[in-house]
Amino acid sequence: MSPNKPTSQETLDKLSEALESGAMVRGRRMLNGLSPAEIAHLLESSPPRFRDVLWKMVDVDVEGEVIGELGYELQAHYLSQMDAAEVASITEGLADDDLADILQQLPDTITQEVLDAMDHQDRARLEQVMNYPEDVAGGLMSTDTITIRARITLDVVLRYLRRHAEIPKMTDNLIVVNRSDQFIGLLPLRTLLVADPTASVREMMITDIDPIPVDMQDAEVARLFERNDWVSAPVVDESGRLLGRITIDDVVDVIREDADHSFMSMAGLDEDEDTFAPISRAAPRRAIWLGINLVTAFIAAATINLFEDTIAKVVALAVLMPIVSSMGGIAGTQTLTVLVRGIAIGQVGRNNQVWLLNRELIMGALNGLLWAAVVAVAASLWFDDWAIGAIIAAAMVINLITAAFTGAALPLLLTRADIDPALAGGVILTTVTDVVGFASFLGLASVFYA
Amino acid sequence: MSPNKPTSQETLDKLSEALESGAMVRGRRMLNGLSPAEIAHLLESSPPRFRDVLWKMVDVDVEGEVIGELGYELQAHYLSQMDAAEVASITEGLADDDLADILQQLPDTITQEVLDAMDHQDRARLEQVMNYPEDVAGGLMSTDTITIRARITLDVVLRYLRRHAEIPKMTDNLIVVNRSDQFIGLLPLRTLLVADPTASVREMMITDIDPIPVDMQDAEVARLFERNDWVSAPVVDESGRLLGRITIDDVVDVIREDADHSFMSMAGLDEDEDTFAPISRAAPRRAIWLGINLVTAFIAAATINLFEDTIAKVVALAVLMPIVSSMGGIAGTQTLTVLVRGIAIGQVGRNNQVWLLNRELIMGALNGLLWAAVVAVAASLWFDDWAIGAIIAAAMVINLITAAFTGAALPLLLTRADIDPALAGGVILTTVTDVVGFASFLGLASVFYA
Repeated sequence: MSPNKPTSQETLDKLSEALESGAMVRGRRMLNGLSPAEIAHLLESSPPRFRDVLWKMVDVDVEGEVIGELGYELQAHYLSQMDAAEVASITEGLADDDLADILQQLPDTITQEVLDAMDHQDRARLEQVMNYPEDVAGGLMSTDTITIRARITLDVVLRYLRRHAEIPKMTDNLIVVNRSDQFIGLLPLRTLLVADPTASVREMMITDIDPIPVDMQDAEVARLFERNDWVSAPVVDESGRLLGRITIDDVVDVIREDADHSFMSMAGLDEDEDTFAPISRAAPRRAIWLGINLVTAFIAAATINLFEDTIAKVVALAVLMPIVSSMGGIAGTQTLTVLVRGIAIGQVGRNNQVWLLNRELIMGALNGLLWAAVVAVAASLWFDDWAIGAIIAAAMVINLITAAFTGAALPLLLTRADIDPALAGGVILTTVTDVVGFASFLGLASVFYA
Repeated sequence: MSPNKPTSQETLDKLSEALESGAMVRGRRMLNGLSPAEIAHLLESSPPRFRDVLWKMVDVDVEGEVIGELGYELQAHYLSQMDAAEVASITEGLADDDLADILQQLPDTITQEVLDAMDHQDRARLEQVMNYPEDVAGGLMSTDTITIRARITLDVVLRYLRRHAEIPKMTDNLIVVNRSDQFIGLLPLRTLLVADPTASVREMMITDIDPIPVDMQDAEVARLFERNDWVSAPVVDESGRLLGRITIDDVVDVIREDADHSFMSMAGLDEDEDTFAPISRAAPRRAIWLGINLVTAFIAAATINLFEDTIAKVVALAVLMPIVSSMGGIAGTQTLTVLVRGIAIGQVGRNNQVWLLNRELIMGALNGLLWAAVVAVAASLWFDDWAIGAIIAAAMVINLITAAFTGAALPLLLTRADIDPALAGGVILTTVTDVVGFASFLGLASVFYA
């Protein structure tokens, strides 16, 4: 009850101290005093060896919930060590959508065994959720809804609720359906609690909310939740029949993952990247990314190689050329970043992309002119050669306009081609700005110093 | 009610068509048929001129809500065009925390006028929220809570609720306080609706939830909500007295902003960056970032300049040197990205940072060796000179280990010094990898080719 609850880092510090000093019993008690989500966070914040010690100390009856809270990498890691019976027993009582996520990561034979071990009703519900990919509304929904009919009075609703042992978590609305199980409205609990009990559900329900189509993309679902401040929302099939509901806790995960995605992808990393992955898992991915970038570095080198003779004559060109390419890379990355985010949050579309492209081009030209002037003066003074100043200035303007165009057009083209702009954009962009930067600077120089 | 509601991009397309064809009345009706959040999103997705046309078409009575949903940049833009009376009238009925955010952006004289125009009770509540910076719990909270006492029965609670005209949105729990207004527990509505009405609040309330201290950082608040799947949570002062509550909709904004922050900062941009900012607003910021990076580019150039004589002798060095620096930059950025995210989501602390630093160093060395071998072979064949292959291999290993160390140590050091690692990290990192890359490659070469 103290307002000074320790942060998770402090908990982890205390826990490691306890375990290092051999106080296993105290450590175990501390660990299992935490919520499953906090335990999951501790596991994710621990290097592999300590992580395995912690995992063995987790009470068996919360293992399922803890696994449900872990990132995909760690989930798969622990699940791969279990057989079907263990998976079935620890996942009892998990929400449909969490369980479906877990099962979708297991080999098919194990998934089937787990399903076989469940009772008929649970299995039917689960299979419904598992029918949908996890990145659409159907994969996010759970089937634990309370539905009511429109013609009854609020008083009847109140008595009907009292027959339940429990109302599902995150229930802010009861869902009103017709005889064919089609969605027709929502009755908020906050209305139920203050409105006249003799009024009918039909009179008091909200009907101006559109249910979520089961095949809607998760990012669009998240946008609807954010814009409408929903806690939960009903999910329907093409004929409007109620299939389940999505709750804000799962939407928050989508928001977190989508936002992380852009950030991690720009460095060639996965949004589910385990911060404490052992070298054997982390190194291969990093190596591949470096390999891809090595190809682009060789393309840049080959560009420079075309002008070998000119560099041999004027070595100052070798000194100054990285300035042109790196400024292009920085300017292009800024434009790319603005566009990637704009696309991710649904701001950029057919009606405004031409305006954006134009603005970036003008800004690229303005910034190109500004910094070209500065660099021209600096280079001229440094090498006591006004020609080299003029050449680098021209090259900078060319490269910054190229950078603006590439940074803006690339994500639009990649998105249209269904390629992730956050992942592929940066590599292609820097290849362009390197090649154009080196070629324009050294090319102009080779004409002048020929 | 149709499940095929148009996405906001489609709405925007239709709206622009309507307005371009002069169908102002239809456009206005379309626009004001949307929720305030959707209108805000449309404004944020529009270039300046179209944005101003849209803004003039927004009904006056939703202007306040729309402004509450806008990003800071646009909020400030529209508020700066209003006088105190207008601000006071459009913001009537906004939640305390939203209104406080808006008022904190206005000049003090206008804020005072708006406060003076409010009734005494509203003003007192608002001033309480405005006492806290917007990045702590106090700045996120609203004061519209329903509190009850522990000794009454659920039946009395139900009758008490019926005396309210409305229960505040996002109310999932009633807050139980003692005589001194101190928080003692929560009574979930879902308990109230199913439990025995003759039971007392004390018997049915939850007491194992810690209230949020008013000075807790917003990122920590967001973590608690995410981990515990809360819809709302009570906020208390040091003595445990209830001050208000935080709701998930405001927490979602914090999560979105924090995640955006890292992504945008890596490109020197602000997370509130208006995607469609006019050039006059966007260009200066971009120019400053380019200026900062120009300084680092000149540092790199100065490093190359130290080895001018060697390059004059062996021009192939100029061709190959960008490979060493760019691979260092890429490898370092990967490490930096993993660390910045790990720190942002609270995974990295005293007990695990040494392990992380070690892992990155080993991985840097392994990847350095791997790609050094590849580059060595390629460079030797290309220039028919085994020495240049050996030199570039050695330089790559040195630079990739340096990159790993800098990428890992820098965010830890910057965080300790209270400098944003996402903003400053990349610039410092690439300066280090450029300088070390050029110096090691050209330095080794100058020894060999001397």
